[in-house]
Amino acid sequence: MRFPGIARTLVAMAMTSLVAVAPVLAQSDPLPSWNDSAARQAIVAFVKATTTKGSPQFVPVAERIATFDQDGTLWVEHPFYAQAMYCLDRVPAVVKARPELANVEPFKTVMSGNREAIATLTMDDLMKIVAATLTGMTVDEFNAQVKGWIGSARDPRWKQPYTALTYLPMQEVLRYLRANGYKTYIVTGGGQDFVRVYAEQIYGIPPEQVVGTAGATTFGYDASGKPILTKEPKLLLNDDKAGKPEGIHLMIGRRPVAAFGNTAGDQQMLEYTKAGSGLRLAMLVLHDDATREYAYGPATGLPDTKVGTFSQALYDEALKSGWVVISMRKDWKRVFSFAP
Amino acid sequence: MRFPGIARTLVAMAMTSLVAVAPVLAQSDPLPSWNDSAARQAIVAFVKATTTKGSPQFVPVAERIATFDQDGTLWVEHPFYAQAMYCLDRVPAVVKARPELANVEPFKTVMSGNREAIATLTMDDLMKIVAATLTGMTVDEFNAQVKGWIGSARDPRWKQPYTALTYLPMQEVLRYLRANGYKTYIVTGGGQDFVRVYAEQIYGIPPEQVVGTAGATTFGYDASGKPILTKEPKLLLNDDKAGKPEGIHLMIGRRPVAAFGNTAGDQQMLEYTKAGSGLRLAMLVLHDDATREYAYGPATGLPDTKVGTFSQALYDEALKSGWVVISMRKDWKRVFSFAP
Repeated sequence: MRFPGIARTLVAMAMTSLVAVAPVLAQSDPLPSWNDSAARQAIVAFVKATTTKGSPQFVPVAERIATFDQDGTLWVEHPFYAQAMYCLDRVPAVVKARPELANVEPFKTVMSGNREAIATLTMDDLMKIVAATLTGMTVDEFNAQVKGWIGSARDPRWKQPYTALTYLPMQEVLRYLRANGYKTYIVTGGGQDFVRVYAEQIYGIPPEQVVGTAGATTFGYDASGKPILTKEPKLLLNDDKAGKPEGIHLMIGRRPVAAFGNTAGDQQMLEYTKAGSGLRLAMLVLHDDATREYAYGPATGLPDTKVGTFSQALYDEALKSGWVVISMRKDWKRVFSFAP
Repeated sequence: MRFPGIARTLVAMAMTSLVAVAPVLAQSDPLPSWNDSAARQAIVAFVKATTTKGSPQFVPVAERIATFDQDGTLWVEHPFYAQAMYCLDRVPAVVKARPELANVEPFKTVMSGNREAIATLTMDDLMKIVAATLTGMTVDEFNAQVKGWIGSARDPRWKQPYTALTYLPMQEVLRYLRANGYKTYIVTGGGQDFVRVYAEQIYGIPPEQVVGTAGATTFGYDASGKPILTKEPKLLLNDDKAGKPEGIHLMIGRRPVAAFGNTAGDQQMLEYTKAGSGLRLAMLVLHDDATREYAYGPATGLPDTKVGTFSQALYDEALKSGWVVISMRKDWKRVFSFAP
């Protein structure tokens, strides 16, 4: 687009004033994608109470730790976890490198592309796929493989890169907390090494602030004598349910002041957070927006065994324990940055 | 001491000018306890090259990770590790709580106070003492126990609190790196939970930046229903030798740009650090100062099996691989803050 002189000057002036005003706007409305509901008010009141000098609930900067589940809390987890899609998408490359797997189950079924057959794979089958796609390579090779996939893969519903499927209102919460001296951590049941590849780019969270399910590595040397770390099929931390507070202790060594989750896998992390002294914030994202995202959990009455379910029991505990439920439908003006 | 009017004014003026000048001095001489030797020059040149914009070796702030071994690198490790003293000192409290141990070995020997007998305890005996003193309690109880000990215990040689036994020149390196955007980590063979209790106070290093030998915890609830984490006698990470780069990957997820150690237990961490692209700094503290501290390792020809030994082989690798050796005797003007 081209502007005549006067219009160009006006545009330049408008842009200059936008630049000047932006920080002020950001300060006055740190959560523009949120409706002015109880959930939003709880977040703002918590931040003010814990960061205002002289407040009885003031928390020193060093202790400002906030932990976030990833799948279903920071980005979409339905119909499948992104990492599950990664493992399936990675199978052809694994079979190409190890042709003897082409006629061995479960690799044969995955290679067939038959979705119905793939859906019937057992947990034991899936563990074989996980081991073949997430272990056996060096850490550097794995990082490059995930980076390549995350840059090109698209989700089945919106046809967006997975990195676009993050919830805009939660991105705002991450930034708002960090602007107020909080260190933000991801505490995920997903693979620690997997999430670390893209967490800095899409959440502004560096690798050292990603706690997840972690396998062992083995230090050794390659043929040229260069030190390498190889990913082993040996579980060190199952960062789900009770594993979340255990992982927080192992990796952070402090109890969070605020924690955010959405499923029964986050219950113990939220309980552990709330059990600390002083003011604590525990929030649960309720997936009740079938139009803009998905509806599952208490909003639909699905049983607790379904992947990603936020059970009625957890919902009841939330209300009883002073956790704050975030209704995606009612509390969020906007869900994604790519959709209105 | 009381001053007459004019002297008091002079003292006040001198103190004011000290306060005003201190930051300038700190900026112009970040390493005042170092002699102007090759080791000091290597540190300053590394920091300038990796943090000056436009430098071909510039490292973005997010990637500025520096890792430090603790025992023998940041503080004294002879004649015993502080944590070993803690475990022995803790035995009476354990026996008081569990009187049935009073007549069971190795607790009986430790309770006897017979130093010669204690010195003959086997590794198996020591593991029983470690398990009894470092596990079985909640994380909060353990933290309180270590905090109490570190506040009152004195080392056998200087009769100082262990927290005073840190090397002043290394404290300056920690601060100098942090002032230049580096995140400083401890990567220790010692207990992660143990070191985390005092690392912030004495090194300015927060718990989440302490990587160490770590045991499992179990999440559960106490009698009142409050969530607790209990320390278990199950090893998750043996953060020594090859375990150091493995622990760095697990806990940090980035390769360090600078690493500091003093024994064969640090060799793989230093190799892993040096194997990264761009400029890397690997330094080894050589204990060659029998007067101000201790002399051991290549300086004395002690064998590699001795606790804390920096072997001749490691020393030779250092020289060959471009690691920089820090001679305590020649490179440090001052060793401790409590001694001249």
